[in-house]
Amino acid sequence: MKPITIYGVKLPIIEGRCDLAEVIVDSARRQGLEIEDGDIIVITCKIVSKALGLLVRLDEVKPSRRAVRMASRAGCDPRFVELVLRESDDIVAAIPVKRIADEKLIDLYAYSKNPENVRRCLEKYPTLFLVIRDGSLWTDAGLDSSNHPPGVISIPPRDLDGVAKAIRDRIRELTGKDVAVVISDTEVFLTGSLDFARGSYGIEPVERGFGEPDLYGKPKFGGVDAIVHEICSAAALMMRQTARGIPVVIVRGLDYERCECGYRDKVKMSSEGWARILRYIIKETGKVLGLKNLLRMLLEFI
Amino acid sequence: MKPITIYGVKLPIIEGRCDLAEVIVDSARRQGLEIEDGDIIVITCKIVSKALGLLVRLDEVKPSRRAVRMASRAGCDPRFVELVLRESDDIVAAIPVKRIADEKLIDLYAYSKNPENVRRCLEKYPTLFLVIRDGSLWTDAGLDSSNHPPGVISIPPRDLDGVAKAIRDRIRELTGKDVAVVISDTEVFLTGSLDFARGSYGIEPVERGFGEPDLYGKPKFGGVDAIVHEICSAAALMMRQTARGIPVVIVRGLDYERCECGYRDKVKMSSEGWARILRYIIKETGKVLGLKNLLRMLLEFI
Repeated sequence: MKPITIYGVKLPIIEGRCDLAEVIVDSARRQGLEIEDGDIIVITCKIVSKALGLLVRLDEVKPSRRAVRMASRAGCDPRFVELVLRESDDIVAAIPVKRIADEKLIDLYAYSKNPENVRRCLEKYPTLFLVIRDGSLWTDAGLDSSNHPPGVISIPPRDLDGVAKAIRDRIRELTGKDVAVVISDTEVFLTGSLDFARGSYGIEPVERGFGEPDLYGKPKFGGVDAIVHEICSAAALMMRQTARGIPVVIVRGLDYERCECGYRDKVKMSSEGWARILRYIIKETGKVLGLKNLLRMLLEFI
Repeated sequence: MKPITIYGVKLPIIEGRCDLAEVIVDSARRQGLEIEDGDIIVITCKIVSKALGLLVRLDEVKPSRRAVRMASRAGCDPRFVELVLRESDDIVAAIPVKRIADEKLIDLYAYSKNPENVRRCLEKYPTLFLVIRDGSLWTDAGLDSSNHPPGVISIPPRDLDGVAKAIRDRIRELTGKDVAVVISDTEVFLTGSLDFARGSYGIEPVERGFGEPDLYGKPKFGGVDAIVHEICSAAALMMRQTARGIPVVIVRGLDYERCECGYRDKVKMSSEGWARILRYIIKETGKVLGLKNLLRMLLEFI
């Protein structure tokens, strides 16, 4: 049985707009890695933003009145909140991460080697915004300040499938090899972070095995592996320490279904769709558990 | 830079109680794989249940009145609902997955090769229950009927960290090698499934890098990779097709922090803690977005 191998590709620091596909191919080659047919190239969203020049200087952002008001209530920098508002279609929730950590509901200090750094970090970002952007959920709209000079923020590109396809096509031009490209982004949850695909091209994003017969011929509830997300989490194992400078990973040996399609072509989510799903879940919960139980639960929560 | 390699280990069909560590070591060896120091052994929760004899026959389950009532409202088998109730501390929500699929809010049919199988599957499981079990969220309390004979359900063990430690210790006895063990479980979401760690031993489950200085010396909001979950998603890439019969994966070459600890020792979550976090998020959202916006959003949802 063929193993799956994950290779890290170190890149030079990307200073401004560049041909990212060329940088990746050259860097891999210098590390003794030739790109092969069927490889999956995983690239962090942030390095794509840098290569496309999608960086903003906070001191050039003029916050709106709404941003100033929200920032003062949330304890954040109004210029940062302004950027979140500009880059979001809808704000779903504000997560008081400092309060949650201070009360040890989640012990962020246990996930750190230096409590003073945690304190400084939470002072600067006491609240995370959960938003909808292009039909997906993101915290802080995917804006990212880390590993940028102070006061600089990177913004994820729109149409990340298109970006993935362009890189895929350019790699084919440069090497003659057919690869799939997946663009990954880290999402911080309350109990750790995971990496997710934000765009892809050339790979079926979700396994099409729902209801396939199991070993006993019964239709199986499952068989819908979110392949591209799993690939990003696998890649994160290699990328994880920033100091390593590994924003690109090659996944080799994975037997995947190829397609001329992107993530959005297959995984469609709209704000309206999500709202209806949530409404149905609340209604069904009330119906199945009984109104008394639903009320008790709501009272516990509010 | 050392690559990470993921090896699949085929096991014989586990028919009843057995020494799972021995089966894994023997099976790996037959496939030309000797276990090495530092390997991470990922094992599906279901195969652990089988090896521990945690199987129940539905026709031996007598549903309570509450289970009968809930099942009739949810359209499910009352004996299955009875098992869900027995194995849960709290039921959080009922997810009407058939309705969501029928209305194409999520197009499960697009994730399938055979619409008739999807229909049969959704007839049998029209509703998923989101529950809290031992401080974690599970759908259907982790009960699983697939790849078991008709009418047989497997139940996840309690104390999965303890199970992981026992397998780790036994592998050391058999081979003299120090490994980490992670027990994985698939969770089906509305846009595909991912694998998560439900128990582990010998590996620091979450990267302790919160607030570490970034390339510019600023504390980084992040650095808390949920390593054990990422490992399970990476393993899922190898395990994914049931027909392959790969319930065990060896991850080799990952540079991880060892610890004499399990998942629960580090990632602590209680129902009460979750309830308080949710309450704070709702309150903060109201405060930051303003009451008008919160009400608008709630009205959209209900």
